[in-house]
Amino acid sequence: MKQTLTPFFEPRSVAIIGASAVPGKPGHEVIRNILANGYPGKLYPVNPKGGKILGIAVLSSISELPADCDLAVIILPAGATPQALRECAERGIRYFVLSSGGFAEVDEAGAQIQDELVRIIGEKGIHVLGPNTSGHTSTPQAFTSTFFPQGKIRRGRVSYIAQTGNFGTHTLRYIMTGEHFGVARVVGLGNKIDIDETDALEYLGADPETAAILIYVESFKRPRRFLEVAGEVTRKKPVVLLISGATEAGRQAAVAHTAAMASPDRIVDGMLRQAGVVRIAEYSHLILAGKALSMLPLPRGGGISFLAPSGAMLAVLADFCVRLGLDIPPLEPCTIGRLQAISPAYIRMRNPVDIWPAATSSGVEFAYREGMDIVLQDPATDAVVPVMMLTPETGVPDPGFIVELAGKYPHKPILVTFSGDRQCMDEYKAALEPRGIPTFPEIEQPFEALAILARCHQAMNRPRKVREV
Amino acid sequence: MKQTLTPFFEPRSVAIIGASAVPGKPGHEVIRNILANGYPGKLYPVNPKGGKILGIAVLSSISELPADCDLAVIILPAGATPQALRECAERGIRYFVLSSGGFAEVDEAGAQIQDELVRIIGEKGIHVLGPNTSGHTSTPQAFTSTFFPQGKIRRGRVSYIAQTGNFGTHTLRYIMTGEHFGVARVVGLGNKIDIDETDALEYLGADPETAAILIYVESFKRPRRFLEVAGEVTRKKPVVLLISGATEAGRQAAVAHTAAMASPDRIVDGMLRQAGVVRIAEYSHLILAGKALSMLPLPRGGGISFLAPSGAMLAVLADFCVRLGLDIPPLEPCTIGRLQAISPAYIRMRNPVDIWPAATSSGVEFAYREGMDIVLQDPATDAVVPVMMLTPETGVPDPGFIVELAGKYPHKPILVTFSGDRQCMDEYKAALEPRGIPTFPEIEQPFEALAILARCHQAMNRPRKVREV
Repeated sequence: MKQTLTPFFEPRSVAIIGASAVPGKPGHEVIRNILANGYPGKLYPVNPKGGKILGIAVLSSISELPADCDLAVIILPAGATPQALRECAERGIRYFVLSSGGFAEVDEAGAQIQDELVRIIGEKGIHVLGPNTSGHTSTPQAFTSTFFPQGKIRRGRVSYIAQTGNFGTHTLRYIMTGEHFGVARVVGLGNKIDIDETDALEYLGADPETAAILIYVESFKRPRRFLEVAGEVTRKKPVVLLISGATEAGRQAAVAHTAAMASPDRIVDGMLRQAGVVRIAEYSHLILAGKALSMLPLPRGGGISFLAPSGAMLAVLADFCVRLGLDIPPLEPCTIGRLQAISPAYIRMRNPVDIWPAATSSGVEFAYREGMDIVLQDPATDAVVPVMMLTPETGVPDPGFIVELAGKYPHKPILVTFSGDRQCMDEYKAALEPRGIPTFPEIEQPFEALAILARCHQAMNRPRKVREV
Repeated sequence: MKQTLTPFFEPRSVAIIGASAVPGKPGHEVIRNILANGYPGKLYPVNPKGGKILGIAVLSSISELPADCDLAVIILPAGATPQALRECAERGIRYFVLSSGGFAEVDEAGAQIQDELVRIIGEKGIHVLGPNTSGHTSTPQAFTSTFFPQGKIRRGRVSYIAQTGNFGTHTLRYIMTGEHFGVARVVGLGNKIDIDETDALEYLGADPETAAILIYVESFKRPRRFLEVAGEVTRKKPVVLLISGATEAGRQAAVAHTAAMASPDRIVDGMLRQAGVVRIAEYSHLILAGKALSMLPLPRGGGISFLAPSGAMLAVLADFCVRLGLDIPPLEPCTIGRLQAISPAYIRMRNPVDIWPAATSSGVEFAYREGMDIVLQDPATDAVVPVMMLTPETGVPDPGFIVELAGKYPHKPILVTFSGDRQCMDEYKAALEPRGIPTFPEIEQPFEALAILARCHQAMNRPRKVREV
């Protein structure tokens, strides 16, 4: 078993081997990112040219590094990496991020260099993330080793493990620019010659900063151990996983990407389910689930209520819920009575809730606020989705009432979606998400997110087998 | 069989029975909408109070209506509607939109009033849309009968038939404010006591303004005839349909909505497929498909190529395509050779296309432009999806090159999606969509849209049975 990975996430001081004074170069951008994040530890750029980079004195060789350096980010061409790794290890550094590509993912020559790295790891007893990784991030310690321009990375409660550079690069960039949630840790596994998804999962499982873990993998390096670790972690926190290669076409694309061979899909599926891992099938659901897990409590069950301004939406969304495995339970007679009391007599209230008659007779804010409050009080309701109809002409209520309801029912997730003016939707998102209420532009998305949350709750509370007791 | 519905869509002059001087009232907003759309025909508001509404002289009774009026929109309480309908019919009007609710969808008293309407239709030989409809729209004639504030409704190539008020109201509002496509005709069926989905489909099937038809229904009034008509229309233009009530929960919600009983789902499914109707399962796909059908040619087959900046995305999206029934065919050796020529030697090019190595070595615009051009030339490629990675630091090319490629390959749909900065994505959408290239914020959406287009093509070109020949 790997020793603790803590120095990766809480480095006291960091060497950047291959630091560059040239903006745009990875060896430059990584330093810019570290500074932008406000990393409080010491930073030692290394480059034979010396001088200063972004105001920081550059050491001209690895041999000048001080003894207290616990992490090195090596951004050198593949061929120069083994020698630098060896030298750093000899200076006492034990944790490494190898950022360059050009190893086994490329060709036979690269594979041979990678083999040399593996030998050095064995000889020196060091820990390596990568090679061919876009780096890792640890917002509680204001640190990142990513070289993709990110600026300040928003801190949050969820962590990502990814066998792809996307999460250190453009997907993280999307989350930072398009969403309002943040991340705790992000681990780009790269070619995983040492640290693999199982090590990362084990660390994040014990990490108090991480409330939920999202994983993208193309293969499992140690499947049996992964399932053992996942089986324990998933009892404490949600683990959501996307694995590519579910189809032959996907497998071929994955092989082209990381040269790793995936297992037959249905076997993977059963094993993951047994281990309490919630498997998802769409890339964008890594973001959807990350957002929901960041902002919401887990529902205590799959019973939901939703309010829509349209009988057609109620009917279509009811179908959709059933397909997702969500339940739309009947509400108690007193709940129905209270819904009826806020609605015109002609409409027979039920779950799901046709809220527009009440909105027409008593105003949009009154109808949604009272309607949501009434269904949230019902014991059968584990979560609520209001489909807000928003146009200036029909009235756009201040979204504060939704924040109040979320505070009043802290154990019942509220997920907001919309119909109507695009501009109003954008304003609701901007107003609600910084206050912890997730919004979704497509009406199906909150239900997809809720289904994932409900599966997470179920997985965390699954019975132990007798032999496990 | 119903006579032509033309006067609904090309009325020469229109009476508004129940016109109101009070902003916000349906009898007022319908006039505002008609004026906002620039309707060139004559408009006759009718209200006992007389005076002017929005500058138009009001007639104080139906008996004052001129003889040339071919359409009346009646916006009166349910109880007053039969008498008005009868009076209008006696004045020679033969086409009616009955906008009010309060009929069979509400209670027994309403059902009795509705029965009276049915009797009047039989007696007078008139044609009625509704009651309980949010109206209809006909952009080529700059006319709408919707009372929901819409302003100018953008003209387009697709038409909607909906057994719900949504398309006259908030869904149309979303399309107008959040998307760049327009509509030709929109028909809100309401309680369909006369005009039903089959009549509307037959009209739109022959309508030169309508290139594709999207339908939402909760039940079929004349299922056999609908299938007959659909079987013919679908050979000429795409028909995409969402029916709610696929599950028991959805059925219950649909019954609560329109009191119409849906058929067992798998029977509906088989019959629709046989008739060439492309069935969809999500509400938001009515918009997704409308957008794709508005902007794109149908692909000639299900063979697609896509370009992504990430091996992980290639793998996940390849899985996704297979699940959708899309094919990612091998490309010709010369195509592969040309892709290889624009890429660094280490990457082995194939379909789908890992475009980022080329972008890194030769620039983002060069890589995407050349890469798309190369795959578009391959005979196996029926459609192309570029997953554009857009961040200011990596470079955001002028999207004009995509417009040029769409012009160069007019028979091959190009659908754009993104990864990276949200702001860049919004700018691409604003730049590309008015020039006819659809963009999609979630990476799965262009593939979902393409799968619908490919099914439309297949349905239009399905073999005729021998007995049909």
